[in-house]
Amino acid sequence: MGRLLLNCDIGESFGAWTMGLDAEVMPLIDCANIACGFHASDPQVMRRTVALARRHGVLIGAHPGYPDLVGFGRRSMACTPAEVENMLLYQIGALDGICRAEGTQVRYVKPHGALYNDMMREPELLRAVMAAIKAYSDSLPLMLMSTRDNSASQAMAAEMGITLWFEVFADRAYDDAGMLVNRKLPGAVHHESDRVADQALRLARGEALTTLDGGTLTLQADTLCVHGDNAASILAVQRIRQFLQAITP
Amino acid sequence: MGRLLLNCDIGESFGAWTMGLDAEVMPLIDCANIACGFHASDPQVMRRTVALARRHGVLIGAHPGYPDLVGFGRRSMACTPAEVENMLLYQIGALDGICRAEGTQVRYVKPHGALYNDMMREPELLRAVMAAIKAYSDSLPLMLMSTRDNSASQAMAAEMGITLWFEVFADRAYDDAGMLVNRKLPGAVHHESDRVADQALRLARGEALTTLDGGTLTLQADTLCVHGDNAASILAVQRIRQFLQAITP
Amino acid sequence: MGRLLLNCDIGESFGAWTMGLDAEVMPLIDCANIACGFHASDPQVMRRTVALARRHGVLIGAHPGYPDLVGFGRRSMACTPAEVENMLLYQIGALDGICRAEGTQVRYVKPHGALYNDMMREPELLRAVMAAIKAYSDSLPLMLMSTRDNSASQAMAAEMGITLWFEVFADRAYDDAGMLVNRKLPGAVHHESDRVADQALRLARGEALTTLDGGTLTLQADTLCVHGDNAASILAVQRIRQFLQAITP
Amino acid sequence: MGRLLLNCDIGESFGAWTMGLDAEVMPLIDCANIACGFHASDPQVMRRTVALARRHGVLIGAHPGYPDLVGFGRRSMACTPAEVENMLLYQIGALDGICRAEGTQVRYVKPHGALYNDMMREPELLRAVMAAIKAYSDSLPLMLMSTRDNSASQAMAAEMGITLWFEVFADRAYDDAGMLVNRKLPGAVHHESDRVADQALRLARGEALTTLDGGTLTLQADTLCVHGDNAASILAVQRIRQFLQAITP
Repeated sequence: MGRLLLNCDIGESFGAWTMGLDAEVMPLIDCANIACGFHASDPQVMRRTVALARRHGVLIGAHPGYPDLVGFGRRSMACTPAEVENMLLYQIGALDGICRAEGTQVRYVKPHGALYNDMMREPELLRAVMAAIKAYSDSLPLMLMSTRDNSASQAMAAEMGITLWFEVFADRAYDDAGMLVNRKLPGAVHHESDRVADQALRLARGEALTTLDGGTLTLQADTLCVHGDNAASILAVQRIRQFLQAITP
Repeated sequence: MGRLLLNCDIGESFGAWTMGLDAEVMPLIDCANIACGFHASDPQVMRRTVALARRHGVLIGAHPGYPDLVGFGRRSMACTPAEVENMLLYQIGALDGICRAEGTQVRYVKPHGALYNDMMREPELLRAVMAAIKAYSDSLPLMLMSTRDNSASQAMAAEMGITLWFEVFADRAYDDAGMLVNRKLPGAVHHESDRVADQALRLARGEALTTLDGGTLTLQADTLCVHGDNAASILAVQRIRQFLQAITP
Repeated sequence: MGRLLLNCDIGESFGAWTMGLDAEVMPLIDCANIACGFHASDPQVMRRTVALARRHGVLIGAHPGYPDLVGFGRRSMACTPAEVENMLLYQIGALDGICRAEGTQVRYVKPHGALYNDMMREPELLRAVMAAIKAYSDSLPLMLMSTRDNSASQAMAAEMGITLWFEVFADRAYDDAGMLVNRKLPGAVHHESDRVADQALRLARGEALTTLDGGTLTLQADTLCVHGDNAASILAVQRIRQFLQAITP
Repeated sequence: MGRLLLNCDIGESFGAWTMGLDAEVMPLIDCANIACGFHASDPQVMRRTVALARRHGVLIGAHPGYPDLVGFGRRSMACTPAEVENMLLYQIGALDGICRAEGTQVRYVKPHGALYNDMMREPELLRAVMAAIKAYSDSLPLMLMSTRDNSASQAMAAEMGITLWFEVFADRAYDDAGMLVNRKLPGAVHHESDRVADQALRLARGEALTTLDGGTLTLQADTLCVHGDNAASILAVQRIRQFLQAITP
């Protein structure tokens, strides 16, 4: 991969409930992490979202989550690796089924919310995620969080035969371990759009960040997570794109 | 198609709840209509069921239903054609995703319960079903009910470019229109296994049935619906197979 | 009952999804039809909504629906009377459980969406609704639609021993049978706030309306349905209150 | 409380799926822990189960669980105390609504599965459970696990103003802390019915048990958990009753 791809969680409406400014953010991103019906979305919303992504030439990613609509997939659930593997196969396949009707297909996978966090913490769950992706297709990358030392996940991916896309964050402070600082702590979230765009630029250039503890941190960065929740986050994405375009030939 | 294929609804367990004698009936059938998680089943059950079907060389069919677990997909729901189309794409894709992990794939589609009945009654829903199947793949047949006059569904299928497999029933009485007699009426269901096997044989040979009203009825018969609910239905399937094998070279 | 009570569907958020301007409309209404988790809402949303209603001295009504979150309870489902009776008992009890923690209780019942429409069309479902309400409490009124001739529902209510509150609409045209004109037809919905407020005033005074066909229609009116979906509907409710206050001593 | 009450999880069928020998075990028990629709059951099953309990004069307990049908409430979910409190109010109220139609009411509460385990481990969740029960009614006891030292839960219950019923197990080995030995370890589960009945008798008499580690353990025992899953467990309950009746005047 060359430049830093912008990825965004999208298609998170459900039935009569609308969430997110999908139409506004879609033209600004490269990769759409599309919810698959377990933590958000439904077949109708998925169809609309896939069509929107295709219209803008955005890569479609499956964004599978725990089966927890009321908790929006944000509550960790004690699922076995086999359960995780099969819920991924189910959700990736379901989104891919919708994609076929729009003449496109799933191009990568990024687990959602608590499943993403649990996968980063539990190697057995990460292996289950990789097993599902590999079984589904030989060519689907997994998007996961970049940390100071990605060697363990890279070794597992090499063993399983899958590609990794490392994800970084421009609006969040990192600690010295290369983990995101807990949102509840002061300084964890960057709110000024120039600060966010500047961190995006550093990440894109492979430059070191300053951690919240004052150390330095260089992260492998294939893709940057952005948000389309509200007008402010749309402006932030536009600002990031401007900054990044300045360095892309 | 040559001989009369035996199809059976299967994989209808859900979470901790077991339903049906799947292991007993699978070796006896040709086509497994596998529930896809909307009216029954879940990713774990689907994985086990697909593996079982593959082990016995049974064709895997998607058996999509209305989103109504508590009602087992047996309650008609006022869904739009677009909703039906998208819920089929979702469910077929989900099952196909599971199939990939077992090195196999979905080979046909048979809607379940109230969706099946509604599709037979409402041409716009039948068209939505066909549109989903066609969009999913150029080569997936739709299994639907054979009636006295199948010309309308055949014309629609020709227009949409999909193949139809007409399904018949050996344990049910037909009326003069070629529809199943309502279960609540006397004589609607055949209980003696020889009577059932005899009707299967007539259908396989293309011979006319006697309707409940005393008329004659000849049905196009590609596949026969059998059941694996309990020990009695397993015996009935065994008897049907014996009868049918006598006429197959 | 004396004056025309304003009732509004409310508490229709679900998990991470927000719907409706509950905080804005609650101070303007008399009766809050609170969703009970089957078509919308969840225990957290119900708790917040009950607390909000109590703070404003608004009567709390259970607003039970079909078990269809993705369809928001707007799709008719072929449920038996026994299923309807038990799903009402469940939902009324669930809301009342939440009410206990806020020191209040359910004061009336208004079925939601497709269940409301089906109940108005099918006497056996109306009877099931009444049976549930009566079994739950001797003193809960049922809110249902007023039509030209309410004698059948009144006779059933008298037999079952329950109270009826007849609901009317100010923003919808009626036909000569006293039914709401289908939303898809021209003239079915009144958009000008003065027109809406004027119809509310006529209904409150017991004056005849002019039907879409040009006839006259006088409706028993205990309560008027208003909406809190968006800023325009909030303004409409404010306007209706002003008009109605002019006639209330 | 005087004698050792037998309690059993019951009413765990769901829609078309049957679980447990409810009709066989109900006549043998004192307390029915009835599922409330989140991890198992639905309004129809609840109605039948409540009617069955009432017919046999069995105390009705609410058996609320996490919202996880596919996982049968056995998977821990990271819910907040407020979420737990409100999901309990909802489920207790729902079951009580069904009870009203059968002329009875909820008499105690026993959380289910992972929620039960989490409550025993996390004081904040136990407090949330107690808060819900107290808010629902001044007189509902909470059934929870007896351990070597129940003083912490007793202190909390005294503070919250609720009654505790301590539950013990006859078919499981205890460790020195008074916790159940993990099912996966050898010797964790007693399979011989006389061994089980003997442990029940000791618990009823207030006699010490021998722990798996060889120590002694005396447990406060108000109620004994029994099972109605299959024919063997029904026999075990019958045997326990015989043993216990020998010591009850």
